[in-house]
Parts: sequence; C-alpha cells; structure tokens
Amino acid sequence: MRRTIDLNCDLGEGFGVWTLGDDEALLDIVTSANVACGFHAGDPSIMRAVCERAAARGVAIGAQVGYRDLAGFGRRNIDVEPRVLTDEVLYQLGALDAFALRAGDHVRYVKPHGALYNRIVTDSEQAAAVVAAVTAYDPKLAVLGLPGSRFLKLAAEAGLVTVTEAFADRAYTTEGRLVPRSRPGAVLHDAETIAGRVRRMAVDGRVVSIDGVVIDMTAQSVCVHGDTPGAVDIARRVRSALDEAGIHVSAFAT
Amino acid sequence: MRRTIDLNCDLGEGFGVWTLGDDEALLDIVTSANVACGFHAGDPSIMRAVCERAAARGVAIGAQVGYRDLAGFGRRNIDVEPRVLTDEVLYQLGALDAFALRAGDHVRYVKPHGALYNRIVTDSEQAAAVVAAVTAYDPKLAVLGLPGSRFLKLAAEAGLVTVTEAFADRAYTTEGRLVPRSRPGAVLHDAETIAGRVRRMAVDGRVVSIDGVVIDMTAQSVCVHGDTPGAVDIARRVRSALDEAGIHVSAFAT
Amino acid sequence: MRRTIDLNCDLGEGFGVWTLGDDEALLDIVTSANVACGFHAGDPSIMRAVCERAAARGVAIGAQVGYRDLAGFGRRNIDVEPRVLTDEVLYQLGALDAFALRAGDHVRYVKPHGALYNRIVTDSEQAAAVVAAVTAYDPKLAVLGLPGSRFLKLAAEAGLVTVTEAFADRAYTTEGRLVPRSRPGAVLHDAETIAGRVRRMAVDGRVVSIDGVVIDMTAQSVCVHGDTPGAVDIARRVRSALDEAGIHVSAFAT
Amino acid sequence: MRRTIDLNCDLGEGFGVWTLGDDEALLDIVTSANVACGFHAGDPSIMRAVCERAAARGVAIGAQVGYRDLAGFGRRNIDVEPRVLTDEVLYQLGALDAFALRAGDHVRYVKPHGALYNRIVTDSEQAAAVVAAVTAYDPKLAVLGLPGSRFLKLAAEAGLVTVTEAFADRAYTTEGRLVPRSRPGAVLHDAETIAGRVRRMAVDGRVVSIDGVVIDMTAQSVCVHGDTPGAVDIARRVRSALDEAGIHVSAFAT
Repeated sequence: MRRTIDLNCDLGEGFGVWTLGDDEALLDIVTSANVACGFHAGDPSIMRAVCERAAARGVAIGAQVGYRDLAGFGRRNIDVEPRVLTDEVLYQLGALDAFALRAGDHVRYVKPHGALYNRIVTDSEQAAAVVAAVTAYDPKLAVLGLPGSRFLKLAAEAGLVTVTEAFADRAYTTEGRLVPRSRPGAVLHDAETIAGRVRRMAVDGRVVSIDGVVIDMTAQSVCVHGDTPGAVDIARRVRSALDEAGIHVSAFAT
Repeated sequence: MRRTIDLNCDLGEGFGVWTLGDDEALLDIVTSANVACGFHAGDPSIMRAVCERAAARGVAIGAQVGYRDLAGFGRRNIDVEPRVLTDEVLYQLGALDAFALRAGDHVRYVKPHGALYNRIVTDSEQAAAVVAAVTAYDPKLAVLGLPGSRFLKLAAEAGLVTVTEAFADRAYTTEGRLVPRSRPGAVLHDAETIAGRVRRMAVDGRVVSIDGVVIDMTAQSVCVHGDTPGAVDIARRVRSALDEAGIHVSAFAT
Repeated sequence: MRRTIDLNCDLGEGFGVWTLGDDEALLDIVTSANVACGFHAGDPSIMRAVCERAAARGVAIGAQVGYRDLAGFGRRNIDVEPRVLTDEVLYQLGALDAFALRAGDHVRYVKPHGALYNRIVTDSEQAAAVVAAVTAYDPKLAVLGLPGSRFLKLAAEAGLVTVTEAFADRAYTTEGRLVPRSRPGAVLHDAETIAGRVRRMAVDGRVVSIDGVVIDMTAQSVCVHGDTPGAVDIARRVRSALDEAGIHVSAFAT
Repeated sequence: MRRTIDLNCDLGEGFGVWTLGDDEALLDIVTSANVACGFHAGDPSIMRAVCERAAARGVAIGAQVGYRDLAGFGRRNIDVEPRVLTDEVLYQLGALDAFALRAGDHVRYVKPHGALYNRIVTDSEQAAAVVAAVTAYDPKLAVLGLPGSRFLKLAAEAGLVTVTEAFADRAYTTEGRLVPRSRPGAVLHDAETIAGRVRRMAVDGRVVSIDGVVIDMTAQSVCVHGDTPGAVDIARRVRSALDEAGIHVSAFAT
C-alpha cells in the first residue's frame, strides 16, 4: 500500500505593504495552506490572492487563526476570555471562507497560530473556546494540531476530525515531544537531513530522537516553514525527497 | 391592499469596552439590523450578540460595511483602491455571516456605512467595488442605499435586488434630495413630526419637502437612528405610528 | 498640622466616537488625572482636550500607560517582552507629553493601567521594564502604584519618587491587601460609606478592614472611579467629605 | 566655497515582525533619517533602534509623520479633520522625540509621508494643520517638503525653517515640477545617471529636465529611497559621487 502524507505551511502572513515568505513558491510545494486571517497577520487582499492561487493548484485552504495582535504577530500569550476567543475565531473563519468561496472552494481545516497554538496544548479553557468556534462554524472542518494536545483531545470529543502534525525542522525527545528551542540542536538547518527525516516519517512512521533513539512519529501532516529563502529551499527538498520515495503527498482535507 | 414598509437601524456599533446606542431597545422596534462588521465599529462579541438577538426576534441581519477606520468611525472619506475595497467588503461579509449562521440565520442584505455610503452615491469606481464584493459573496443579497445613487444603479445592473431608503429625521428638497446638514432645518428633532412624516411615506408614498411641497417618497425602507436616548424614543414613536396606521412593518429581506 | 491627600482618577478613556466617563465633571473633583495614552484607550484629540482642561484647572497630568490592546481595553494580561514593553511605555510617555507641553504643562507621573498594573505587582521583569522606560524618559517623574508592589520597590531602587495609592471603593483585608473582586463585599457602592472611609484614611491614616479591624492605610493618593454616573457622584461625595474635614486635597506631583 | 547638500531617506518603516528597507545600510549613507512614527509604519522598538543608530552616527532624526493607516502604509488620501490631524501629528512628534531623547538627541525636523505629503502640496487646510502641530511642539523644528508647496509656504509664514527637497530618482518637467509617475521616464533606474544628476544639483544647482532643458534645481536636501536592494545601491552610488566631487554631504538640521 502506498503511503500518504500532507505538507502544510503558513501562508499569507504579510500585511499591507509588508510581505513575509514566498507564497508563490510554497504553493507549488505544499498540499495544505494555513492562511492567516487578519488578526495577527494577513489582510483581505492577501487572503484573496492566496485563496485564489491555492484553489487553482488544488492546495487545501485552512484557517490560520490567532490572537488579535498584529504588533506581536500573534506570538505573545494573551489572556483572552474564552467566550471572546470563540467569537474571534468565528470571525476569522467567516472572513477567510468568503475568499475561499470566491475562489470556488471553502475552508477545510483550522490551525491555530503562534502563542495560541502553544497555549492550547495545555490550556483547556482556550482549547475548548477554539473547538467551540470550529464546531459552531462547520462541524465538518478538520483541526490540525500537536499530538497529545488538549486541543486535539477536546476537538475529538466534540466530534471534529483531528489531524496530528510533525515539524520538519525540529528535533524530538525520545518521548516524542518537541525539544525546546532553548536547547542546542532543537532546530535543524541542513536540507538533506531534514528531507531525510520527513521521508522516514512518511515511509515508516519513525524518526530518530535527539538522543539517537528511533521513535514512532506517525503525524498525518508535516509542517514546513517558508519565511526565509533558505526555508523555501528546505521545503522544496522535503517535497522532492517524498516524491522520489514514491510517497503520495496529498492534503488530508479534501 | 395593506401597505408594507421596513424600518432599518445601525446596530452593534460599539467596540470592546465602548458602547454606542441601545441595541436591545432598537431590536424591539426595527425590522432590519445593519450590523457593524469590525472595520469602523463592532467587534466579534458584539456581532455575535446582535446576530443572536436579531435572529431570535426575526429582525433581518444586514452587513453594515465600512472603511477600515476605527479611529474615525468610518466617517472619513478614504481613497481606497477599488480592488482593495472589494476585498475589504468581502472580508466583512464573511465575518458577519459566521455569526448570522451561528444564530441559525444568514446575512440578507448590505448597507454601506458613513463616508463609504456617501461616496458611492456618486463615485462609480468605489460603488462598483462594493457591488463586486456583494455579487461575489452571494448574488441573492439585497443592497440598501440612496435612491438615484450610482451604487443602486450599478447593483441593479449586476442583477442584485436593490432597496431604496428614506431617512426618518431628515428634510428633503422639493427635488427629493436630502437637505445638506449644513442648512437649517436639515435634521428634524420632534418625535411627533418625524412619526407623522414616516407614516405618510408608508401610507401614500409622500412627504412634505423643506419648501412645503408634497413630493413622492416611495422608499421601501426607512432608516431610524438609535445612538442617543432621544433617538430611541423617536424610533419607538415612529414604529407606533406605523402600527396604529395599520401599516405592515416588515423586513424587505426575508 | 493639616493633612494632605491626592485624589486620582482615570481620564481620557474614550476612543474616536466612543466616550467613557465624564471627564469634565471629574476634572472638577480630582487633583491628579491619569490620562490614557492611545494604546488601550485614548486618542490624540482626547488627549489634547484632557490635557488642556487639566492644565487649566491645575490638575496634575499623569500617563496612564497600558498594553497595546484597544480591543481589550488593556485589561488582558499580555506576555510582552520586557524590552518591547519599555519601548511601548516610552512611546506613550512621549506622545502624552506633547499634549501636556502644548497645554503649558508637562507629564508629572506614571500610573500603569489595568492588566499591566496588576501584573507588575508581582512580575519583576515587566515591572523593571516600566521603571526603565520612566527612568529613561525623565527620572524626575513620580510613579503611582500599589503599596508593596514589585513596581514601587524597583522604582524606588531606581531613584524614582514612588507614591502609594488606596482605592476608595474597595474593601481591604486585615493584612492591608485588596479583597479579591470575586469575594462578596469586595467593592463598596454606598457613597456615604466610601466618603467616610476616604476621610478616615486622610485624617488618621486608617481604615476598617473587611473583618472589622482598624488597620493602617497611609496611601498618599486615593483612586476614585468615574466611568459610570454613579461613580461620578461618589467621587464628588468623597471630595466634599475631605473638604469638609479640612483635609488639603492636593496633587502629590507639583 | 564648498557646496553642501543633505541626503534624506525614509527609515524605520517596518512594523512588528515585518521589515522594509535596510536601515543599517542606509544610516551609513544618508545625513537625515525620516523616521516613521507608528501611524502608517514603525513601532516603538523600531523607532528606538533607528534613533539609537542615527544618533550614534550623527545622522539627523526627523519625524516621518503620516495618516493613521497601517493597512495602507499612509499612501491613501484620508479626509481627516484638520483639528484631528494637528493632534495626530503632535502625538507622533512626541512619541518619536521620546526615543530621540533616550538616544541623547532630539527630533530636528518633520517630513510628512505618502498621501499626506502629496495632499499638503495643494490642500491649505491640512497643510496648516501640520504646520500648527509643528509650531505647537517646537517652533525651532525645520520642515522638509516640496518646493512651491502650500505646506512650505504656510510653514515659512509661521516662522518655521523650511527646507526644499529634490528626488534623486525622479524626472522633472522644464517648469521644475515632478513628472507624474504615470508618464514614461518619470522614474529613473540607472545608478550612474541618478548619481550624476544629484552631483550636478549639488555642484551647480541644475538638472536636465525630461525635455532635455537644463533647469535650476536648488534643493537643500535630496531624497534617496532604500526599500529595495537596488535602491540601497543607488543611494550608495549617489553618496560616493557627491563625496568624490568634494561636496560636503551634511544634515541641514544640526
């Protein structure tokens, strides 16, 4: 049986005159586009452009929802009341869907961004608030998140399709957790190494931990970055390695 | 045959801790709610609350779209590129619809706000940009605007349902135009006078101009204001006068 | 010897078309105006108006600095990097001072707002960041805060003038701490009771705790609120009680 | 007698995570830095960094004030009330000065940005509003603008030091006006050509018009751009050409 994996990437993260990352190049590499929705990055014209191009290439459109924090790019933890957070996520979902619909498509999944992504790994209240928004908007949407997170657990309990992700350029502990960025070796930089690790995840669901142990890593989607020229090259190398290995690179949400 | 008229009002125009107008009181009076969508006023939690209450009372939900200008409440003319304006209106439409959908309803019409409303009376480019957004989002949406405006003309040409509105508390010239606010007598303040004028518009499609001439005024919707305590009383008096006269006060969009 | 006390109040907390509190009325009551600086509330025109009026009445102008969070009114805890927080406080200080200078005066003190106020009671990093901004801007500025807070401790160590404040309408524990808002009786509402407590603080530096014990409360400034009509009446009653008791109500910063 | 000219450039035009232009490289080339103040671009941390580096290199710090329009980068005409515009410019001036002061320096001049720059070439009301802000903040500040503009005329009448600027990469009509960007040849791209033109402006106060006529061009400051890699190279070439010609490249405001 042929193995399948999804490649997801943050896209549409500019604002007004400012750009971030090479959306065009990445849309030729990935199968799922996490599109910023205007609260921490992205603006209506960028959202339209990314949705148009994603739809034209068959790349799945996902909502990269985040805290209302343009100045901090959604990377700062904010104690938003859960009820307000639900409303803010709903707002972002609806806004993005307008552009997906205009492109003849629709939003297929939700991936929280930055500080929100990290917080709902453990914070049940904010996790439940995001789940409530997704459920209210469209219970057929999938959610993308960290394996073992409160977010995915609560989403599954609410009946949502949950999709686990791994990170192409991050080291893992032998327990399968992300090595904190503060530790040496937490972030990988060599394109060949990274491509090889992702290929192994896709081929036999395993990766070598930072301590040299082969561990299970069965993520359905792998996150690649694209906000630097080097990152685009790495993403391209990852995609090539998967294609060469005969892996079916395909969106989880179709 | 029984006459029918719609009463519309701007609602949901607070932001965060700040409130504006008495949304609760007005939702018991009007039949169409122009809900601010977060660009010049309104925030996700306010939008949710207004949509919930409007849906519960059978008040039609409309998108009060405006320029991106919280600091100026959308009252300042901005030279937005038409293409960007289309995207901004689409964004607002999608965002509001998320809350209308959550309330078991959907957005039924669009009414531009403030400086945008005034500009597209004559500016064909920005008018066309708004029409393009509405058409792209849902060609079954109605648009509410000034009789004779470029906006309604272009909307009609694009196949949208167009609805004309009159203003309960504004004087008209004998030619049927709004008397500019700078002229004495342009804005009416007496509740009985205003209620009587609206009743006459509804009963026989006429109103007395500022020069004392009876003119045709066949608007399908009448706009009442609600941002001051006095304004709520006037709106209530208008509604009573219509009810007492046996006019069917009903949303144009159902 | 005649006793002296300062009354401070949050002012200029509107934004654009939105108002909050009765600035005019309060400027006739208080001796120190904590003016919002545009990050969580306030805008340039409001800042100008409040500074003009405060200067004309001899009310001391203080900078009510807060997190960059208009949507949350600065009431939500944000994990801003200390270095960025220092820059944001400096920005707000300079901006407000432009209006104080234009009114022939200058900013005399700093009072952090909302979530920032609460956080720097215990968070040394953010407290130090605010202190660094004040010191860099003008080491002769005073800072207003909670007795026993990290903020006042670090400010004193940095050589700033520190001023302690009590809250007119809040109950205190026998240990002199604020009773948490979640406990019954934490917030007082009766004008006479509140005025009597503030008079006693001013006359003999004492107040009755929530458990009925007379405790020391020697704050140099008392914070009154003004964001509801009832609150303005309470503030007025507090001022009258102090005047009648022969207390010298005067700004700490002159 | 040795000729002197100033080179000015827009700097600090990023926001949060987003960058624009190579501030570091440009601060080694120009003598006056037009620093964005947070309304159309720039944030507190960027403003601090640019002011620190400019002060360390002896580059004059100017306030690049603009409309409140991050989404449009200040490039869209906004009908701000003149009174509000004065307040907004004052706010920006005070905010920037906090960082200039922290760097041991102070703001020395004001250059309006984008749509505001263009509007006050002819709009007397907005021009007067900017002049009023500068005068209120510090009547010793210089203003930088287009020769013949209403802005410079009103500023001179108000007693401000006015400084005219030419654009290194723009063609001029024989009447000395900027060739509109819509005309072919309006913007020059060749580094040698541009450097040669600026050298001639500095050496004998002349430039060749788009129609081939030698005209007077006696601007005291020349604006170079830096928002693309190519632009930085051009700026560097301009500076070299001036240095090689023995022109004294020096800030007008010292």
